[in-house]
Amino acid sequence: MVSPVLPSSGTLSPLGLDAVRLAPGFWGDRVALNREVVIPHCQEWMEREGWIGNFRGEPPRKGREFSDSEIYKLLEAMAWADHPDLPELAATVARAQEADGYLNTRWSGARYTDFEWGHELYCYGHLIQAGVARLRAHGEDELTEVVRRAADHVCDRFMDTTETCGHPVVEMALVELYRATGAERYLEMARRFVERRGLPALGDISFGRAYFQDDMPVREARVFRGHAVRALYLACGVVDVAVETGDAELLKIVEEQWERTVARRTHLTGGMGSRHTDESFGEDFELPPDRAYSETCASIASVMLAHRLLLATGDVRYADLAERTLYNVVATSPALDGRSFFYANPLQVRVPAEPPEGLNEAAEGGLRSPWFSVSCCPNNIARTFASLPAYVATSDDSGVQIHHHAAGEIRHGGLLLRVETGYPWSGGVTVRVVEGGAGRVSLRVPAWADGARLSYGTVERGEVAPGYAVAEGPWRPGDEIRLELPLRPRWTLPDARIDAVRGCAAVERGPLVYCAESPGDEPALAGVAARLSDPVEREAGGVVELDVDAVHRSPGRATWPYGDGDADGGREATLRLVPYHRWGNRGPATMRVWLPVAD
Amino acid sequence: MVSPVLPSSGTLSPLGLDAVRLAPGFWGDRVALNREVVIPHCQEWMEREGWIGNFRGEPPRKGREFSDSEIYKLLEAMAWADHPDLPELAATVARAQEADGYLNTRWSGARYTDFEWGHELYCYGHLIQAGVARLRAHGEDELTEVVRRAADHVCDRFMDTTETCGHPVVEMALVELYRATGAERYLEMARRFVERRGLPALGDISFGRAYFQDDMPVREARVFRGHAVRALYLACGVVDVAVETGDAELLKIVEEQWERTVARRTHLTGGMGSRHTDESFGEDFELPPDRAYSETCASIASVMLAHRLLLATGDVRYADLAERTLYNVVATSPALDGRSFFYANPLQVRVPAEPPEGLNEAAEGGLRSPWFSVSCCPNNIARTFASLPAYVATSDDSGVQIHHHAAGEIRHGGLLLRVETGYPWSGGVTVRVVEGGAGRVSLRVPAWADGARLSYGTVERGEVAPGYAVAEGPWRPGDEIRLELPLRPRWTLPDARIDAVRGCAAVERGPLVYCAESPGDEPALAGVAARLSDPVEREAGGVVELDVDAVHRSPGRATWPYGDGDADGGREATLRLVPYHRWGNRGPATMRVWLPVAD
Repeated sequence: MVSPVLPSSGTLSPLGLDAVRLAPGFWGDRVALNREVVIPHCQEWMEREGWIGNFRGEPPRKGREFSDSEIYKLLEAMAWADHPDLPELAATVARAQEADGYLNTRWSGARYTDFEWGHELYCYGHLIQAGVARLRAHGEDELTEVVRRAADHVCDRFMDTTETCGHPVVEMALVELYRATGAERYLEMARRFVERRGLPALGDISFGRAYFQDDMPVREARVFRGHAVRALYLACGVVDVAVETGDAELLKIVEEQWERTVARRTHLTGGMGSRHTDESFGEDFELPPDRAYSETCASIASVMLAHRLLLATGDVRYADLAERTLYNVVATSPALDGRSFFYANPLQVRVPAEPPEGLNEAAEGGLRSPWFSVSCCPNNIARTFASLPAYVATSDDSGVQIHHHAAGEIRHGGLLLRVETGYPWSGGVTVRVVEGGAGRVSLRVPAWADGARLSYGTVERGEVAPGYAVAEGPWRPGDEIRLELPLRPRWTLPDARIDAVRGCAAVERGPLVYCAESPGDEPALAGVAARLSDPVEREAGGVVELDVDAVHRSPGRATWPYGDGDADGGREATLRLVPYHRWGNRGPATMRVWLPVAD
Repeated sequence: MVSPVLPSSGTLSPLGLDAVRLAPGFWGDRVALNREVVIPHCQEWMEREGWIGNFRGEPPRKGREFSDSEIYKLLEAMAWADHPDLPELAATVARAQEADGYLNTRWSGARYTDFEWGHELYCYGHLIQAGVARLRAHGEDELTEVVRRAADHVCDRFMDTTETCGHPVVEMALVELYRATGAERYLEMARRFVERRGLPALGDISFGRAYFQDDMPVREARVFRGHAVRALYLACGVVDVAVETGDAELLKIVEEQWERTVARRTHLTGGMGSRHTDESFGEDFELPPDRAYSETCASIASVMLAHRLLLATGDVRYADLAERTLYNVVATSPALDGRSFFYANPLQVRVPAEPPEGLNEAAEGGLRSPWFSVSCCPNNIARTFASLPAYVATSDDSGVQIHHHAAGEIRHGGLLLRVETGYPWSGGVTVRVVEGGAGRVSLRVPAWADGARLSYGTVERGEVAPGYAVAEGPWRPGDEIRLELPLRPRWTLPDARIDAVRGCAAVERGPLVYCAESPGDEPALAGVAARLSDPVEREAGGVVELDVDAVHRSPGRATWPYGDGDADGGREATLRLVPYHRWGNRGPATMRVWLPVAD
């Protein structure tokens, strides 16, 4: 099975790239764009910036201390996409590996002298993930050889120490390499990395040890905290260790951490991370729209985690959050042309951004940049889109589960299903049986889809509740399953404890969060307030936009912005909302997801 | 005249420490505490941390690259306070000065190799300010000799270059040294530092060049931007240069920058700075209460700037902002016992802080810390409180202006006035004439003081408008001037463009901003909402606290914090508000200035 996550046990089993193919449509188009544009874009930039040259020993060394990991993420993307340039790039990487398996273009000569910030094990983690992808999609080759030697070096060096890396990722990578090879020492190494964290295993840093989740043992934490990408990558590894070691208690702990994080530390888009200073979660209910960090990589890590929890438990809420995050953060990061990216994904932008020049250092939202000095996000998009079909569906003894509604084909056992849908723009999903067979077909009904309806063959199930709508086989060629998800636009209000969006509401439609965007010389959004009347749908080039009634108020006080209240009644207007993931594709603009409510 | 700012021209002339003495009362108590506790506290910590030892050449060098400046700020405080330890500390500093006047314990041997971050000119700026204080309060001595040699070195080295420092302060220091000595090259050096900034004069940094105000020439900027302390220190120097060179256009530019900043980038407390990442202003109307940075040093810089603009123009709005900032940020930073300090001064704290251990690296609000690895704030408090009487009153040809109502004595010409007041707790201010003379006595009526009343001798002026209430002389011993400022608590609402406090209101009384504080095991403030009924005053140990009607709502949704609204009506309660500057003196607590408004 060609999939990034292949647990040896769990409620659901993944269906991989060899079982799921996406056709043109929302996600299929992005998978194709990724192969044709994003992967070459990443490759070109890293060649130009000298990060690939580092492996050829071209002086001086370029890029940040962790730039090797970017090449590894690209290699992973290439492996899933079976990209023809992989062997040459892998050979370049292989040249830099030392005799004992050590491989790092920055720290060679000063090995393991900075666990807090050196990122050496982090780089191995991404290297190993690339190797796992290559093993599963292709088989053994030079890359997988490099990876085995590196992984063995890690086990030799770290099995009996108390050390770990300031940036988790090696944990889940080692578990996956164990799954791919059967070599139990990789699992044991991962387990030890997980358990030694927080004893503590790392030194003090100015951000505090919660930054890299070394403030307490994993088993004692009640919520994800610190640097969001680190926290979520670690949680993935913890789930993987828990599943492979049969540690139900540890799995339950991560589930509870996830629950609390989703209830208190997650933006409406599914994005995670509220602080720019240390790219961290922030406190419960600290969810500012303007300073939301919501890093693209954190959203990818969140999808990776939700997928693991879904496989382990079969609980639909994990698929619900993954969908929300995929549509509203992961799909938001790349520009429609695949050549520039958001690093941070705030929910409000007050001042139109200046077009970026060269490398974007600040990694702020506003306008997408073609590349960053820390360019984790574009490469992470590349490997995620390249493996995206593996997140769509699963199987168990009873049959097939379709978690994400996307046009394409799904094969399981003798069954071949063709999914036809205009989702997320329209709510109809038709699953056509191409090759027949036994088993249930379960289709996810998202939590917002009150009034969804299911029918198949002569069966008219009528309304189906959120969760999984089950169509019972057996199936013959030509059979059809029809799910109708109601995509009425809806107003969403925040929990009263989220101070930053008090008095505001947002519009969602199906899985999509909407926003007001004010590009170019359109009137800015500073004085706008919405009326909570029903949004009106407007089809625009295959995309559903929404009109809502609004009031434009003129600016308030000119000298001191605090006093006894504004009196201005404002001017009635119509406000056009666009899907959040599409914003910022028309040049510098202001934007807001949360709209102040008039009166 | 013993004053930190002595312009050679301007609408108002300062009255210095030799003319104004504070008696016991809100500010007099703090001046005394400063001398008895804060100054020794700073001295002890910097001896313990080795920052003073750096000047004795004790290896290895301790502290940050700018730690020398901390000793200089302490020397300035000691100079104003005529502290007996000054000569010995000055002699220690003198030991480290090189033959050509160069003086820096960090960069000796690698002089001027890092203008962006090296802070060498910044350190000279604080050294020069200490020397000016010593010259005015005492006269020439070893410290002033060190300072003249350093300042001459700066002029020799930088007069004809295009360089400047990443952290402004040397500009205003050089102008003041010119004022204190008459040596015009110091003014010319300051003028050149101001004019070369933004051409640009510095290299690129990851925060962007606006961080240190090198993104555009001073004359082209419309608002204060970037790092708040840097921006405000620079503006002080620009005003000083404008005043001494008679550049009315430049003065007007700073006034307009100040206006826009106050209208759009200033917290209710007067605090400035919204971003933690780069300690910067943030954008217009980006004023989050929880992540307000509002650095203590930025508030001190803002008071220094407002004082300069007040002297130059006589415009009451500068004194109004200075008062707001003094009571609600400067007075907030030190604990009531003077032994710990806030670095940041947020307007909301959701999670009670852990008591700090040792040096506080993160400089977050929550609990005051005795010391910081970057300890600008405690030393800045020390020098500000030591010179505070010099901010209280001014004179012009017509007489005396009292800007800040504090118990004490003011001498000008033949006139000796004794001010008696319980302000800010009570609103009566009595100015008793001890020694008679000619001239008007003008008393500031703050912008919030609608219905203030003035009377003196047989004159009953009745209501006086905000601005300056004028009592006409001549004066004989025993004459009294009585100003009554109405201190009714008032609800204050934010401009609709401040997204972060939408739907909230705050309570002010006189110059004081109030807050709800929930220390120890009192119910937390997460679910509280206030009713806008009249607050009820409660006297508590000489402090006025306020009770407001409120609703406590139970927590909202448990799984996903966005949906179709909360239904819980809540429980009626009374919420006790305390003056913001007193919060956090009873141990870890949650706190909020902006209260959600019920319905």
